[in-house]
Amino acid sequence: MGNTFGTLFRVTTFGESHGPAMGVVIDGCPAGIKIEQKDFLLDLEKRKPKSKFSTSRREPDEPEILSGIFEGKTTGTPIAILVRNKSQNSKDYDELKDVFRPGHADLTYFLKYGHCDYRGGGRASGRETVARVLAGTVAKKILGKGLPSEALAKEGTRVEGLVEAIGGIQAEQKSFKFARENELFFADKKKLPEVEKLLEKTQKAGDSVGGVIELRIKNVPAGLGEPVFDKLDAELAKALMSIGGVKAVEFGDGIAASSKLGSENNDAILNLKGKTKTNHAGGVSGGISNGNNLVIKLYVKPTPSIELAQETVNKQGQKVKIKVQGRHDTCIVPRIVPVAEAMVALTLADFYLRQKACQGIS
Amino acid sequence: MGNTFGTLFRVTTFGESHGPAMGVVIDGCPAGIKIEQKDFLLDLEKRKPKSKFSTSRREPDEPEILSGIFEGKTTGTPIAILVRNKSQNSKDYDELKDVFRPGHADLTYFLKYGHCDYRGGGRASGRETVARVLAGTVAKKILGKGLPSEALAKEGTRVEGLVEAIGGIQAEQKSFKFARENELFFADKKKLPEVEKLLEKTQKAGDSVGGVIELRIKNVPAGLGEPVFDKLDAELAKALMSIGGVKAVEFGDGIAASSKLGSENNDAILNLKGKTKTNHAGGVSGGISNGNNLVIKLYVKPTPSIELAQETVNKQGQKVKIKVQGRHDTCIVPRIVPVAEAMVALTLADFYLRQKACQGIS
Amino acid sequence: MGNTFGTLFRVTTFGESHGPAMGVVIDGCPAGIKIEQKDFLLDLEKRKPKSKFSTSRREPDEPEILSGIFEGKTTGTPIAILVRNKSQNSKDYDELKDVFRPGHADLTYFLKYGHCDYRGGGRASGRETVARVLAGTVAKKILGKGLPSEALAKEGTRVEGLVEAIGGIQAEQKSFKFARENELFFADKKKLPEVEKLLEKTQKAGDSVGGVIELRIKNVPAGLGEPVFDKLDAELAKALMSIGGVKAVEFGDGIAASSKLGSENNDAILNLKGKTKTNHAGGVSGGISNGNNLVIKLYVKPTPSIELAQETVNKQGQKVKIKVQGRHDTCIVPRIVPVAEAMVALTLADFYLRQKACQGIS
Amino acid sequence: MGNTFGTLFRVTTFGESHGPAMGVVIDGCPAGIKIEQKDFLLDLEKRKPKSKFSTSRREPDEPEILSGIFEGKTTGTPIAILVRNKSQNSKDYDELKDVFRPGHADLTYFLKYGHCDYRGGGRASGRETVARVLAGTVAKKILGKGLPSEALAKEGTRVEGLVEAIGGIQAEQKSFKFARENELFFADKKKLPEVEKLLEKTQKAGDSVGGVIELRIKNVPAGLGEPVFDKLDAELAKALMSIGGVKAVEFGDGIAASSKLGSENNDAILNLKGKTKTNHAGGVSGGISNGNNLVIKLYVKPTPSIELAQETVNKQGQKVKIKVQGRHDTCIVPRIVPVAEAMVALTLADFYLRQKACQGIS
Repeated sequence: MGNTFGTLFRVTTFGESHGPAMGVVIDGCPAGIKIEQKDFLLDLEKRKPKSKFSTSRREPDEPEILSGIFEGKTTGTPIAILVRNKSQNSKDYDELKDVFRPGHADLTYFLKYGHCDYRGGGRASGRETVARVLAGTVAKKILGKGLPSEALAKEGTRVEGLVEAIGGIQAEQKSFKFARENELFFADKKKLPEVEKLLEKTQKAGDSVGGVIELRIKNVPAGLGEPVFDKLDAELAKALMSIGGVKAVEFGDGIAASSKLGSENNDAILNLKGKTKTNHAGGVSGGISNGNNLVIKLYVKPTPSIELAQETVNKQGQKVKIKVQGRHDTCIVPRIVPVAEAMVALTLADFYLRQKACQGIS
Repeated sequence: MGNTFGTLFRVTTFGESHGPAMGVVIDGCPAGIKIEQKDFLLDLEKRKPKSKFSTSRREPDEPEILSGIFEGKTTGTPIAILVRNKSQNSKDYDELKDVFRPGHADLTYFLKYGHCDYRGGGRASGRETVARVLAGTVAKKILGKGLPSEALAKEGTRVEGLVEAIGGIQAEQKSFKFARENELFFADKKKLPEVEKLLEKTQKAGDSVGGVIELRIKNVPAGLGEPVFDKLDAELAKALMSIGGVKAVEFGDGIAASSKLGSENNDAILNLKGKTKTNHAGGVSGGISNGNNLVIKLYVKPTPSIELAQETVNKQGQKVKIKVQGRHDTCIVPRIVPVAEAMVALTLADFYLRQKACQGIS
Repeated sequence: MGNTFGTLFRVTTFGESHGPAMGVVIDGCPAGIKIEQKDFLLDLEKRKPKSKFSTSRREPDEPEILSGIFEGKTTGTPIAILVRNKSQNSKDYDELKDVFRPGHADLTYFLKYGHCDYRGGGRASGRETVARVLAGTVAKKILGKGLPSEALAKEGTRVEGLVEAIGGIQAEQKSFKFARENELFFADKKKLPEVEKLLEKTQKAGDSVGGVIELRIKNVPAGLGEPVFDKLDAELAKALMSIGGVKAVEFGDGIAASSKLGSENNDAILNLKGKTKTNHAGGVSGGISNGNNLVIKLYVKPTPSIELAQETVNKQGQKVKIKVQGRHDTCIVPRIVPVAEAMVALTLADFYLRQKACQGIS
Repeated sequence: MGNTFGTLFRVTTFGESHGPAMGVVIDGCPAGIKIEQKDFLLDLEKRKPKSKFSTSRREPDEPEILSGIFEGKTTGTPIAILVRNKSQNSKDYDELKDVFRPGHADLTYFLKYGHCDYRGGGRASGRETVARVLAGTVAKKILGKGLPSEALAKEGTRVEGLVEAIGGIQAEQKSFKFARENELFFADKKKLPEVEKLLEKTQKAGDSVGGVIELRIKNVPAGLGEPVFDKLDAELAKALMSIGGVKAVEFGDGIAASSKLGSENNDAILNLKGKTKTNHAGGVSGGISNGNNLVIKLYVKPTPSIELAQETVNKQGQKVKIKVQGRHDTCIVPRIVPVAEAMVALTLADFYLRQKACQGIS
């Protein structure tokens, strides 16, 4: 269980890293939405490993649309899309067959299911996120439409992410434009060389580093989110924490706010559309979008696959040392950016539809 | 929508701050579990405002069991419990009737639903959490049982919380024992006077402060959590972020990990039960409990109700100044502790049952 | 589990026949819908036992609104309503404490939950349906609104039921008007005396009879229903089969159609709104409402509580004879009519909202 | 929405009749269950059109397992299976492009989604059931295991169906063994020639006939079903009514029971396992399996595709006559048998897991 996300816009993913294919089924997408093969390719492209600090596994990622789209439009029936795995290299994993990698899900899958798919993490692999990105492409098409309410945004909603820190090096200036232009999606042009130097050093050492991602979502209609449990920030926290490697999720100035005064942290309200003077809240009040930008941060741990020797046990319970070879990312953070954008899009599209269901009846 | 939590152990809450009652319905609780009136009273007691820095609204909170418990045991049918609101003071809110309080949900509810219940926040009030605590009492009874698997814990699971920082004052030594013994649930005896001084000063100034909560959950059986979306940490993040005031959720060393090396952050595995040398991961690997303690931190914003003048608008869209009088908490952080404990218990009980459904079939 | 119905308009019921109260929580009701105490009373009145062939347990059924309705309108938050049980007579059931009544749920509850609430069937009692009727009142308010689509009905949707057969006596002429005017909701004025004679005879004999209900739903907008599993007829079948005593559900000429030719059974289509010449299909094509009246029949078994001696076993597994005394309905069929109407209303209201969520986006 | 079935054993289907493939994703299947390619082939074989009264579209139906099964066992991750469509003949449908076929879903899909896939019914085609049968194969593996409770069956649960009537010709003797041996799954050897004669005559006339299916499920553990809404019979009614062509669902003697006395219809209880003397109830009491065989009947309408002229409208709203050519079944009833068996298996497997989640905790 647990492979479906959403209440109305329901996304189910399947596939293992070294199985024949990854795939997604989207149920609940409204009919009549224009969508093309190239929309998917654009998002898949952003997700592909690009920099030299990324895995050398390079997949063509050609989406095959199996259902739900006919003559360039969604039909209202389930959208199923497949991406074949082509560049598996199971041999890489042969020597890991009986050993549990620290920081990975090998042992927890083994304890939960009584087995683990040693070939590249199986279902727990980052490869799974290709299916999330496919679904995100569809979700973004819905976000472009707005809701039929005066109080809500006229323009489409836009989700953007950048990397604001890697291995402790913090961007001082944050530019979404610059982030789109470099392979690491790093926010600060001036600091980028320093980051690259760190990554080179880390890669050479067979080690890895973590980092921080910032997401900004513009033109979010006020009124999204379903208190008291399915609050907007609660569902987004779930959506983002479900991405492998993410260990903390923060809204607005969340962490800093915990040491501030109320008089410093409250956002003065400027008008009936919800516009506030500051945005310490990060765009959510009482679990409902308040008409300002959503601002979210993700704290990502370093890739657990490292070539340095680590202590662990094998399936016989014996203590062993392990060095994880294979094709890995020195820093997974940039690769999470498009996945996080997709997860936000899925979450918002679902809340759009939930809100739409209830509006304008009285 | 959005007032139900859980897949198998399903909790639905209802009630508004100034309506006749708060209540909860729990569907999916196994039959035959012993539970008494006094179990509920114990947890409700912990949730009550106690210190002089808390609201002066003092509710008796007497739970009335309406169904699902017969002759001291759960029956397998829905458990419904009611707590009457008795100490409402709607007059306090009369002057707030047409003004949207900054930092509160007044305006977002108005934008979402076309109205807002001006009487103490209505459904968005912290009063709603009394229903969560009632459900938590039942959930904890399930957590005491363990799962029928060798790999899993024999002893019951225990959820504990403490306040580790208030208004920027950080506990240096953290003692769960001491936390249970003071009204602020603060972790550090030596630092407590400093905290109290700050709260007094803040209260006098009509301002408020935020803080940080740490949760530690012991004896969590390995194998809980349902990847890829309903991961243990993802659902816990949702559960905890759904509590009013919580703005960030962190697992293990999440935030610090983002600036560390993989070789520093990975936890060496010591045995086949999943025991690790360190616990940087906070007890979750790949979205599944790994047999170590769960360690979670919540970052809580300062209470938005302050007596200092703030800018906002009224229902006519006019700019006005507001001073929020009434009965408020100078610091809401301690009061969130039992609520957070309850939300963790609900989440774990649900995952217990989900895991139980799938075990031992092959 | 299993006490919640619906996807967006979610109804959860609780309460046992001889517990303190029956209740319902409705989550997902749109805000701003006018509803009054007297709306509930009207529907509850229809459900009450009236004729001399009904149980002599007479409950006042005074609904207490606990949340979700403020100043005469729904607020968008969960609507909780309570009805206290006042006329319990647990002593009636003392001698049944250890014996399983044939045709009842006593033994299956015992086998499932390891216990059974011997006091009037507990949760399995027809008393539970009072909560369904309360939810139905709210659902009907939504049905009165129509959907914002040209293809859909302008007028509100109306659900009507009648009894078309009792104990094998079949109505020859079916009048919904006459059905509303007699306590048995029987459809045929001429045949009513014959039915009453049968009921008297049956009551005197300590026996019971079954019957057939027809439901007709007018002004159902075309387009409701969510293939392939949540088809309109599939969900309605579930909704109606979940009422105690209902053993078969039929759409349109369902049973007769099974022995007809395609050329006899197909309904010729008259216009683009879906109007058909005949309505053998009962208003559903491919699981979606087709713009014609819904026509549904329910086949109800005779009340299992009879005063005649029956063979069964007690909790010790010994064979015993049982005569079920207490307060029972000689014929439960008329009392199911308002409950069936409520279940149809719940189902349609939910599909309304689901359809609304997806319309007008492309 | 609406393309997922089940709470814990969750089945999502996708694919259109004339799209590239049909498929299914099963989430929630326990790990470690042995299953082979040939298990799927066996069930698919039973579903294939065989008799000369069936469609001449003959699909190879080769299942491709994309995930969730590794080294011959389920892994606990989502099982995805694909069957390519190979024998489409879209030209058959060219002349139907603008005309709505009576008795089909063409017009309701058009009204709901603003379009319809004219190529063989798209998603509403019987072709969709191939995905249900694939899921049924997995579900049956779970049903073979039994539940770990004394009160429950030791042997595996078996689902069997037969055709008991076609075009009004009723089987007098019902043999499941004989049903397995003839292509029409007809129950009565003596009456079979009469049925075949009717089918020949009907086929020659370009017409179609309906029929009745009986399902018998043996070794169902007592205790399955989740009152009050997710009752066993309620969910089964939904599951079976969701199959195209099914217009009524009956449990036990449901229809006959409506004209009987309580003393005739009640089933005397023989022992604490729930065994009853008669089985008028069809194996369900109070929405929970009672330890006896489940007995269910489905009433199926005649195939709506007939070659005789029918009145309808085209997309321009003009009245036109239509003769549906193409490849159709004169009688769809036998082909529904394996689909109905699969739907019962899905439903029971889900209830197995739901019951398992709650047992043995107190």
